Amino acid sequence: MEFLTGINKKDTLEISELMQAERIGQKVKVNGAVHTIRHMGNVAFIILRKREGLLQGVYEEGVSGFSLKDVREADTIEAEGILEQNEKAPNGIEIRMESVRILSEPASEMMPLAISKWKLNTSLDAKLNYRSIALRNIRERAKFKIQEGITRAFRDFLYEQGFTEIHTPKIGARSAEGGANLFRLEYFHRPAILQQSPQLYKQMMVGVYDRVFETAPVFRAEKHNTKRHLNEYTSLDFEMGYIDGFEDIMAMETGFLQYMTALLAKDYQRELKVLNITLPNVEKIPAVRFDEIKQKVSEKYERRIKNPFDLEPEEEQLISQYAKEEWDSDFVFVTHYPSKKRPFYAMDDPEDTRYTLSFDLLYKGMEITTGGQRIHDYQMLCDKLEARGMETEGLTHYLDTFKHGMPPHGGLGIGLERLTMKLVGEDNVRETTLFPRDLSRLEP
Amino acid sequence: MEFLTGINKKDTLEISELMQAERIGQKVKVNGAVHTIRHMGNVAFIILRKREGLLQGVYEEGVSGFSLKDVREADTIEAEGILEQNEKAPNGIEIRMESVRILSEPASEMMPLAISKWKLNTSLDAKLNYRSIALRNIRERAKFKIQEGITRAFRDFLYEQGFTEIHTPKIGARSAEGGANLFRLEYFHRPAILQQSPQLYKQMMVGVYDRVFETAPVFRAEKHNTKRHLNEYTSLDFEMGYIDGFEDIMAMETGFLQYMTALLAKDYQRELKVLNITLPNVEKIPAVRFDEIKQKVSEKYERRIKNPFDLEPEEEQLISQYAKEEWDSDFVFVTHYPSKKRPFYAMDDPEDTRYTLSFDLLYKGMEITTGGQRIHDYQMLCDKLEARGMETEGLTHYLDTFKHGMPPHGGLGIGLERLTMKLVGEDNVRETTLFPRDLSRLEP
Repeated sequence: MEFLTGINKKDTLEISELMQAERIGQKVKVNGAVHTIRHMGNVAFIILRKREGLLQGVYEEGVSGFSLKDVREADTIEAEGILEQNEKAPNGIEIRMESVRILSEPASEMMPLAISKWKLNTSLDAKLNYRSIALRNIRERAKFKIQEGITRAFRDFLYEQGFTEIHTPKIGARSAEGGANLFRLEYFHRPAILQQSPQLYKQMMVGVYDRVFETAPVFRAEKHNTKRHLNEYTSLDFEMGYIDGFEDIMAMETGFLQYMTALLAKDYQRELKVLNITLPNVEKIPAVRFDEIKQKVSEKYERRIKNPFDLEPEEEQLISQYAKEEWDSDFVFVTHYPSKKRPFYAMDDPEDTRYTLSFDLLYKGMEITTGGQRIHDYQMLCDKLEARGMETEGLTHYLDTFKHGMPPHGGLGIGLERLTMKLVGEDNVRETTLFPRDLSRLEP
Repeated sequence: MEFLTGINKKDTLEISELMQAERIGQKVKVNGAVHTIRHMGNVAFIILRKREGLLQGVYEEGVSGFSLKDVREADTIEAEGILEQNEKAPNGIEIRMESVRILSEPASEMMPLAISKWKLNTSLDAKLNYRSIALRNIRERAKFKIQEGITRAFRDFLYEQGFTEIHTPKIGARSAEGGANLFRLEYFHRPAILQQSPQLYKQMMVGVYDRVFETAPVFRAEKHNTKRHLNEYTSLDFEMGYIDGFEDIMAMETGFLQYMTALLAKDYQRELKVLNITLPNVEKIPAVRFDEIKQKVSEKYERRIKNPFDLEPEEEQLISQYAKEEWDSDFVFVTHYPSKKRPFYAMDDPEDTRYTLSFDLLYKGMEITTGGQRIHDYQMLCDKLEARGMETEGLTHYLDTFKHGMPPHGGLGIGLERLTMKLVGEDNVRETTLFPRDLSRLEP
């Protein structure tokens, strides 16, 4: 019998610890994976991959107390030596290696991808087929640290704003937005579906906590095979009560984006540098009506409006181009989407019920958010369901919640992988999805 | 066209703002849901439910500038009045109401549950059937704020410890621990499953980030109908490389529990008080071998050991009782579980391969964590799979990751709802699951 009293302090150091000035000239101990070995005659550079970056080890024949033959690429090792400054080394430091202990060895000599190159020059398919290897590349893995920063900012900002985090079920009897595009499964001899959104649950929870959020997977059985669609993705969702209008939702999202860029600039400088990212300016984000911006874009770029109640992908591109040229913004809120294009719970604009009190946020030509005010009145909800010829079966609990009172409210959902993709400058959402699920990809 | 520049500042105040001393005697504006109305002759208390708690409004006939008839339970309202001190009111403050604006009204006069009672005296089934209403009860909703605090502590602690957050897919072609107990679905005409754990993915990511974690749903098609089983739950998972042994994992979990109790004590005092919770002492947590504690329990409580390689639920209870009596601890790590009871990736103890370098953490008689060291050597993994007669089909990507080198590593998974349940003193895990999924429950 023994007692555990807290984390075990290690005598191995991380890169940020090594970079403290007083360590220079000291003997240090580190561990890491052998990322690559560069032979230069009697000297060799053993480059270690550590979670904070690369660390240069210097092997000198006859000086280092081990044989270079004993160390191979993809080994994981523990090493001791003297820490020295070297401007040319990563982070300006290197270790003159004295001794090495091998922690593990690979079974294969051959890596399927040249992960130690700065840029992994291979196809997206190859990267996804060898995902767990490809991500050992420093640039590749940096993308998902940025993704972490986005998620973290979303949560921390919303905690500050009085939101409560919730966990809603992903298996259900019925989904938020009707029956289409649902994955179906058998749940103990009953038909069930995977939720395509936490929409109905987060609305119900507004009656409990006023403000709620969730960061969780959603599932869409859409047969799109495009650069922007996934069949499973991470949705950053929030819903808030006591709003004066859907502008409050857009304002909250703007606040999040400001918080996000500040957090990335503060805690993710390393990854921003590795990926050569300039953070977008989110001081002010333009918001413009759907019908108005369609008209403006049509005029400026001489493009005929085919359908006044829908946006084509090319129009989204042009709206973003317009926002960049006219208002110098990478982001643009498009408001008052047509009612036909929005789900039953969207609040119609009382001044023109063909439109809704809702919005999309476009970022560099792509929709990354859909949001808006929701109906909070029980009778209005019932009327809208009836007008759409929708059944209320399976919506009983949802509707009952409204029967017993709900504040005016609204919310949004942000596609995490899309936001990451645009932020890091990729053009396929699979690049910023750890293990994407699409029409053809169910593994790894 | 307009610009969004950040969150909209509201002139309505939250309870923590009202409690600032300088507000007393001032005119204030608030909003909230009418939780209950208490009539006392010419005076009435209109109790508002706000996200930070209850707020007492005082209506005086002929003084308040509205009629009491205009305000009903379950309305949401905005109210103005003078803030005053009153020791008997919640949080020691009340508002002498001058005017009221109705934001929304319920469609029904009758609440299905008496949510304004301090303790919701109704069956678990009724609470779950009317979940979104039941949670409006102050004590009920407090449980999920505590759950938020646990999740938040898990993430914040691990960020501090150099972990990276990941999002792994929930739909897959094959699961971590064999074919049993999996929900099956059709994925574009191919058979697919819902992941019962992020195990294989998080291990693969150790080769990339050294330390990773995920807080996400997992799915188990188990036909258990008990107070401790769910078919969908939230798993707090981490996996870390460069460990010296599985003790490092237990130490990290102890560190988390210490961080968690500190965070709850700091930021969730309100909910701890509402639920009358005394936080457990986690300064030191005993760890004892599986075979040893079985023996000790058998001797102390005169209970015959039926199966030396398994723990019955009653034995878990007795182990916890033993830990409380002998070591004054609500928690106890049970180490070196039998190899037969652990999945293929568990590292066998080289000193006695009938046992593994693994552990469970018991908390007041219930397993809330399973963890341990994993096999990191490719050949050892292949040998173990073969010895178990398991196929490697579907494990190619996982195994390839090990072929190309992996550090010694280990990790754990914590059942969030179980940990919450024990912490808040409930005895059914459904009490601390927002919308539980079990053999009979697929809605709401």
